Amino acid sequence: MSLLTSLTANVSPDHSAGAHTTIPASVRASDVVLTGDRPTGRLHLGHYAGSLQSRLALQGHCAQTIVVADLQALTDNAGRPAHVAAHVREVMSDYLAVGLDPERTTIALQSRLPALAELTVLYLNLVTVARLERNPTVRAEIEMRGFARDIPAGFLCYPVSQAADITGFRATVVPVGEDQLPMIELSNEIVRRVNRTVGEEVLPECRALLSSTPRLPGIDGRKASKSLGNAISLSATSAEVRELVMAMYTDPGHVRVSDPGKVEDNVVFAYLDAFDPAPEDVAELKRHYTRGGLGDVPLKRRLIDVLNDLLEPIRERRMALAARPDLVDDVIAAGTAVARRETDAVLADVRRAFSL
Amino acid sequence: MSLLTSLTANVSPDHSAGAHTTIPASVRASDVVLTGDRPTGRLHLGHYAGSLQSRLALQGHCAQTIVVADLQALTDNAGRPAHVAAHVREVMSDYLAVGLDPERTTIALQSRLPALAELTVLYLNLVTVARLERNPTVRAEIEMRGFARDIPAGFLCYPVSQAADITGFRATVVPVGEDQLPMIELSNEIVRRVNRTVGEEVLPECRALLSSTPRLPGIDGRKASKSLGNAISLSATSAEVRELVMAMYTDPGHVRVSDPGKVEDNVVFAYLDAFDPAPEDVAELKRHYTRGGLGDVPLKRRLIDVLNDLLEPIRERRMALAARPDLVDDVIAAGTAVARRETDAVLADVRRAFSL
Repeated sequence: MSLLTSLTANVSPDHSAGAHTTIPASVRASDVVLTGDRPTGRLHLGHYAGSLQSRLALQGHCAQTIVVADLQALTDNAGRPAHVAAHVREVMSDYLAVGLDPERTTIALQSRLPALAELTVLYLNLVTVARLERNPTVRAEIEMRGFARDIPAGFLCYPVSQAADITGFRATVVPVGEDQLPMIELSNEIVRRVNRTVGEEVLPECRALLSSTPRLPGIDGRKASKSLGNAISLSATSAEVRELVMAMYTDPGHVRVSDPGKVEDNVVFAYLDAFDPAPEDVAELKRHYTRGGLGDVPLKRRLIDVLNDLLEPIRERRMALAARPDLVDDVIAAGTAVARRETDAVLADVRRAFSL
Repeated sequence: MSLLTSLTANVSPDHSAGAHTTIPASVRASDVVLTGDRPTGRLHLGHYAGSLQSRLALQGHCAQTIVVADLQALTDNAGRPAHVAAHVREVMSDYLAVGLDPERTTIALQSRLPALAELTVLYLNLVTVARLERNPTVRAEIEMRGFARDIPAGFLCYPVSQAADITGFRATVVPVGEDQLPMIELSNEIVRRVNRTVGEEVLPECRALLSSTPRLPGIDGRKASKSLGNAISLSATSAEVRELVMAMYTDPGHVRVSDPGKVEDNVVFAYLDAFDPAPEDVAELKRHYTRGGLGDVPLKRRLIDVLNDLLEPIRERRMALAARPDLVDDVIAAGTAVARRETDAVLADVRRAFSL
């Protein structure tokens, strides 16, 4: 792990995370924060702004576990398991490249933890089908993915699997979007049911941590998504960054440089807000743009520089990791060892609730 | 295990199983037979006639595994886990008392086999919710148990858990009732899907073995059930056997001894057919009863003797086992060790189908 440490040691969270990342006051040193990603695509700047930055900031502040949710990815990707498997390595590499340190953050691969499957199977007895069908996240995703009546059973049950992840690491804080609050509530219902049955508090309830940073849009202003090709991946080359930024949606009414421009819904400003290390300069640029006289091109050039400054060290570590695939294997093995101990201990407690 | 062997060694299947148990021609020495019981009550004579006899006959003929399905029992008994836990030991003791030999039959406790939970979670991705809701066994049991809309998710998913049991032991023959055929079909669909994905036959399809013995009724002629109190348990004392047989439903039209009696739907004859070691005598008694002149009492006395002959050695071994609870622990430990090896090997194959 020494090369790995050397790879990640020179990334200071303060540097990579820019000026915008502070630890929310509600997160205490005694908390256990759980986050995760579905390994179905490379991570992009939206992930960086939305979660990687705060994971970097939390690193060392409190215990945190990141679950690479390959089993959950299979619930709607059962037809392309090789795609999921390949992206486990991509996502792990992205983590290491941005500076997540496996010695301070437990990086756990869901499918390597049998206790999580056992917890899922046990919890399925504590939740009704009607309750799962009412889950708005499940309902929204059923519509979005067009499953209609033919939802895989695993997909219907995935909030239960998430409850297994949350409780399996005794997480107390789970950063989520507003739409995922019902999932937190479901997990806490299961926790209360288990604790009531055992007669002592074997599992902690968790709190949702709602993000204060707005969701970073794709370059076209829509939701950033791998399949839409509108996201800037963390491993984008500087040529790709240039091309994507130059194609960014700004203000269609801002035809001549002298025209007043709109800052709202302007993707370039959304990215500058998220990543420019000098927010005062950005505020001044917004005023200038609004009154007219500031063109899109100088703004985009500034953004290209900001993004390349951010991405250059990440790219370098990404390339070093690509040359050493054994390092990712080491990280998986080390994370699995730690995570097995934790999740097996939780399973032993939960089995008591079922007299097993 | 030496006392255990001595406990079971003196039970010859030919003796305990009566004259009616032959090995179905379709079961080959190369087959793997899987059966199981939900540990929610003590086993009774209905289980003996319906499945224990044939398990005894198969013992040594081919590989067989019996799954004590405690996790499945929890799908609709999550509120009374201690009841399920207690009956794991009761059912195990019943197995040993009738002469099942843990050295020739793998007796596996479902909850001790993490691979079965992992297989369940993986298979849930291969089955749609609509497919599970169409399952007639699930639908019938939903009605019978009055779950209505509030089915536990685990209950909806239990056919998937059964597919995990079947495939987890690479079973090729599964004795079932007609109503359970869709469950076998579901398991084989999963098998085909897994094999197609891996590109080789890692799992065998299984065949249903439909029972040729009619279901043994309860003493009142209804379905035998613990909750109706109409079953004769394998550990019934001779006083209990006498009382229950004397209360058996015969032919309400058979008022005087000289009246002609009906054999059809006559519970006493159903039990004589199942357990009397002299079927020719029973045939003669049926003729006599039909033409009139044979009372219920002599028939019932004969049945009491037949049942006590059958149950006496079972009772004795049951009592010896009650005095040595460590023996059941040994059986669970030994069965778990064998079953873990088998199910872990299957899981490794199935994980390849999911590129895990």
